[in-house]
Amino acid sequence: MVLLDQTGLPAVERSLVCRDIPELVDAIRRLAVRGAPLLGIAGAYGVALAVARGDDIEAAATALRTARPTAVNLGWGVEQACRAVAGTDGDPADALDRALAVARDIERADAAASTAMACHGLSLVPTRARILTHCNTGRLVSGGAGTAWAVVVAAHRAGRLDRLWVDETRPLLQGARLTAYEAAAEGIPFAVLADGAAGSLFATGRVDLVIIGADRIAADGSVANKIGSYPLAVLARHHGVPFVVVAPTSTIDPDTPDGSAISVEQRDPGEVTQLLGVPVAPPGTPAYNPAFDVTPPELVTALVTELGVLHPVDRGGLADMIVSATHGEPWRATMTAPSGR
Amino acid sequence: MVLLDQTGLPAVERSLVCRDIPELVDAIRRLAVRGAPLLGIAGAYGVALAVARGDDIEAAATALRTARPTAVNLGWGVEQACRAVAGTDGDPADALDRALAVARDIERADAAASTAMACHGLSLVPTRARILTHCNTGRLVSGGAGTAWAVVVAAHRAGRLDRLWVDETRPLLQGARLTAYEAAAEGIPFAVLADGAAGSLFATGRVDLVIIGADRIAADGSVANKIGSYPLAVLARHHGVPFVVVAPTSTIDPDTPDGSAISVEQRDPGEVTQLLGVPVAPPGTPAYNPAFDVTPPELVTALVTELGVLHPVDRGGLADMIVSATHGEPWRATMTAPSGR
Repeated sequence: MVLLDQTGLPAVERSLVCRDIPELVDAIRRLAVRGAPLLGIAGAYGVALAVARGDDIEAAATALRTARPTAVNLGWGVEQACRAVAGTDGDPADALDRALAVARDIERADAAASTAMACHGLSLVPTRARILTHCNTGRLVSGGAGTAWAVVVAAHRAGRLDRLWVDETRPLLQGARLTAYEAAAEGIPFAVLADGAAGSLFATGRVDLVIIGADRIAADGSVANKIGSYPLAVLARHHGVPFVVVAPTSTIDPDTPDGSAISVEQRDPGEVTQLLGVPVAPPGTPAYNPAFDVTPPELVTALVTELGVLHPVDRGGLADMIVSATHGEPWRATMTAPSGR
Repeated sequence: MVLLDQTGLPAVERSLVCRDIPELVDAIRRLAVRGAPLLGIAGAYGVALAVARGDDIEAAATALRTARPTAVNLGWGVEQACRAVAGTDGDPADALDRALAVARDIERADAAASTAMACHGLSLVPTRARILTHCNTGRLVSGGAGTAWAVVVAAHRAGRLDRLWVDETRPLLQGARLTAYEAAAEGIPFAVLADGAAGSLFATGRVDLVIIGADRIAADGSVANKIGSYPLAVLARHHGVPFVVVAPTSTIDPDTPDGSAISVEQRDPGEVTQLLGVPVAPPGTPAYNPAFDVTPPELVTALVTELGVLHPVDRGGLADMIVSATHGEPWRATMTAPSGR
């Protein structure tokens, strides 16, 4: 399985070959492969890899699923492929074909979802918009143009984007490294900022809209996303700016009842206390380093999925959306135009 | 003039010799010497250096004052020393003696102010307090124990500090580099975090008090402090946590009417787009990199100065405080215990 190793970007475009499940799990843990939709795709291809190797599928699925506990798409992609394999009569070639077919389907469906999210999300972008985003949600993490990023690109191409503010997104700098790379490639007018500088942009009236992705959405609408997302939601509310989450319905987890039930991955303190492997804090400095934070639904102005725009974000609306997504039925939200101001 | 170069800390304790005003201005600009009270002291010693060299004092004063436009103590220290020099009859030796005497007085007064701020600030710290701080406000920036840091140390020694949360404080990491260094030296239980992670501490009820310093306080009580302070004020308000600013009265600038009149220093984009001199963002990436943000007085629960605790923070209270400070009179605030919850 050949992946683009995202840890070296933008300076180094390096391929990463994962020959077995432990290598893939390591790549996922190190964030060499990362981002909600891509993790779903990688999870499904991972099951195919396990089938091709003749591994124990249950063990492989568990290892993959738990590599990043907060990322619901990962487990979802693994699950889809496992179900396809379980439906075979034991013929390894048939099982591999089915697992690969599911993985490819997930990849294509993600591209289609990305297009739909761009279309629905664009309806929320005003003219001359100054949009703030966090982390990286673009082509690097998707079969298509991404989640929040798909909306940003659509707004740019539609002539509605005045400026994109890109949080650098400490500790791993997915904003400065990856989103800046994608913004430059698209010719989008943008600037990177330290995460703490976003407050002064709100205070001086220079943000019209916040658009982010999600790693898991609980049944009540609580959104787990990259650490640093929640402060943006609080700032947005304080300043009357809409805070919009863009994610495919596969990110909604009906089995997680609310925000308190979301298990938040704690990562290596060294990600905070070192820069490029060089210690910046004194030796032995402890760090608080959660990968995600949780934004409660009352701070989320709208949720954009491939099915449409949900506003307000609540348990009933999400349940309807899940039913439509599961049964492939059209979804019609009670469409009231969201407005934060 | 010999300074401790703070840019190498904590790994490298390097002395920096400034032989003339351009070298000192460069050290101030590079943040080799930094922190509100220390800049006041450095400004006064800088004037003494100019006198010793026989430089044009007005030109030297202007160069020093404008090295960091937002830091009011710098201009204030320069001003104090210039006044002393202006009072001499032209004898260079006498002028130097007077400038040095003023600089030493400022240093000692700062140490005394630090002790007083610790005493007044301690009254605001509950038992088993989990305190969040930002940037670096301790011994490295003061003739004494610092500003906000003096209160933190006093709380620790009084057995009231359960844990100190230290924002790493991007882009220059004064929290991870310097505050962590001072916390470890004091034996304070602490953890460093990416600035964006503070939100999840508030959301999970793990912050009882925010204590920060200030670089300039306008006449209306607007507080300019290190970029990333304002989001903490908004988070603190959202969660009903007291947000306390600790600064000597020399940081209050009656000539700056309000927050909008505070000129905010914009710094080199490279501070954001590079780590340890290595580019992390794509070449040519623009950055928004203000050194400070401004917190409006309505978000400041209390201001602690060497004279006492001002609460609420408003124009009248600040004016009274300035009058007392200027005339060396005792100050009595209307003391109502501040409480954010």
